Amino acid sequence: MTYCLAIRVNKGLVFASDSRTNAGVDYVATYSKMYRFSWPGERTVVLLSAGSLATSQAVVNAINSDLEDPDAAFNLRKGKHLYDVASYVGNLSQKEQQQHAPALEKSHASGEASFILGGQIAGRDCEIYMIYPQGNYISASEDTPYLQIGENKYGKPILDRIITPNTSLEDAGRCAMVSLDSTVRSNISVGLPIELAIYTGDSLEEPWHNKYSAFSPMYKSMQKQWNEGLRQAFSGLPRFDWEKDD
Amino acid sequence: MTYCLAIRVNKGLVFASDSRTNAGVDYVATYSKMYRFSWPGERTVVLLSAGSLATSQAVVNAINSDLEDPDAAFNLRKGKHLYDVASYVGNLSQKEQQQHAPALEKSHASGEASFILGGQIAGRDCEIYMIYPQGNYISASEDTPYLQIGENKYGKPILDRIITPNTSLEDAGRCAMVSLDSTVRSNISVGLPIELAIYTGDSLEEPWHNKYSAFSPMYKSMQKQWNEGLRQAFSGLPRFDWEKDD
Repeated sequence: MTYCLAIRVNKGLVFASDSRTNAGVDYVATYSKMYRFSWPGERTVVLLSAGSLATSQAVVNAINSDLEDPDAAFNLRKGKHLYDVASYVGNLSQKEQQQHAPALEKSHASGEASFILGGQIAGRDCEIYMIYPQGNYISASEDTPYLQIGENKYGKPILDRIITPNTSLEDAGRCAMVSLDSTVRSNISVGLPIELAIYTGDSLEEPWHNKYSAFSPMYKSMQKQWNEGLRQAFSGLPRFDWEKDD
Repeated sequence: MTYCLAIRVNKGLVFASDSRTNAGVDYVATYSKMYRFSWPGERTVVLLSAGSLATSQAVVNAINSDLEDPDAAFNLRKGKHLYDVASYVGNLSQKEQQQHAPALEKSHASGEASFILGGQIAGRDCEIYMIYPQGNYISASEDTPYLQIGENKYGKPILDRIITPNTSLEDAGRCAMVSLDSTVRSNISVGLPIELAIYTGDSLEEPWHNKYSAFSPMYKSMQKQWNEGLRQAFSGLPRFDWEKDD
């Protein structure tokens, strides 16, 4: 499995992804699931992928081929709206899945992949989209300012408690790290390193990007302080009636 | 869906359950999923259920019928070990499911139910078991001191961070409440009231039991303090490099 997350706040966008892929428990590997495309001053696009690694990689290869091809009917730079780009990624994904569908079905395997696409095109708002395996897509909203793909449940409660459109970019980045860290701890199919990208809205620059392993000082310090903070929060919880007599 | 949880610590057992059942989004209701059976000085058994409400209720009806029948081949009081009782509940569940299987299959419906069974029989240790829909079962261990059924993912991270065999019964009870509360907040198929039962190991008494609605002072205070504590923990997280220049 996988866990990827994008958050849209008023100040910009945050993207986070884990790096574990597996085809059964005896074939586990580390792959980045975050793809960044930037043309400073013009547009920034970040793509996160979950599901079939073959489908995800084929989609990214097709994106790169179309970018190199001046005659391509569409590519990442030609989309006027981010939803045009979402639609394009959905089509690439469906095309790839359909190509291998007969063989995959014979092996009872799935070529399904989900994507999160986010970024900004000059003159337009920051946006994030979730692209379903079927190729259709939805965007985040004011009320639901984040989107998740893969193992989304473990890391959801902290997002529901912390994230609002007014959350700062840095707090959203920290919240994404905690959400990923909680998932890594509770589910063996989600693993380090964690990639984090932070895009400052309207900058039209490349997003800030970092990769955190178990040995990264920032990640270790975040884990330690979150654990301590949770224990402190926990020790502040109300007592049961019979404890109050002591 | 449902979320039920049992924790075994050195000092005893904690049980928690939500109360939402639904058959589609237009048929949502409130039912207790916690059944308590106690013969003080002899044995205490608590049963939590998830899955088909019809199967769960039929199993509890059969348990009660067998208890009333002096000639029953087996009942809750006749088991020498708690695993005998787990096996009995698994058999009742399978029998009920098989009886309705042909009709359920025709409607593409499922009669599957999972159970958590816990308690103590005089002279034996406190134990908790998870009974699968297929009727087989597993017990908790030193390394995995809790068991969950239903929507188990949202509330797992806090258990993984807090619960060890040395956790006090009261802290385990608070952790169960936080685990349930996080799940209720993040998943609409899990709902209030929350039931909590705490059994003091070797007491062989009825477990302490309470039901928390959204208006229960203890639950409201727990929610408020946990939220505040989390925010404080969150504000203590390390800063990104560029924040340190400020």
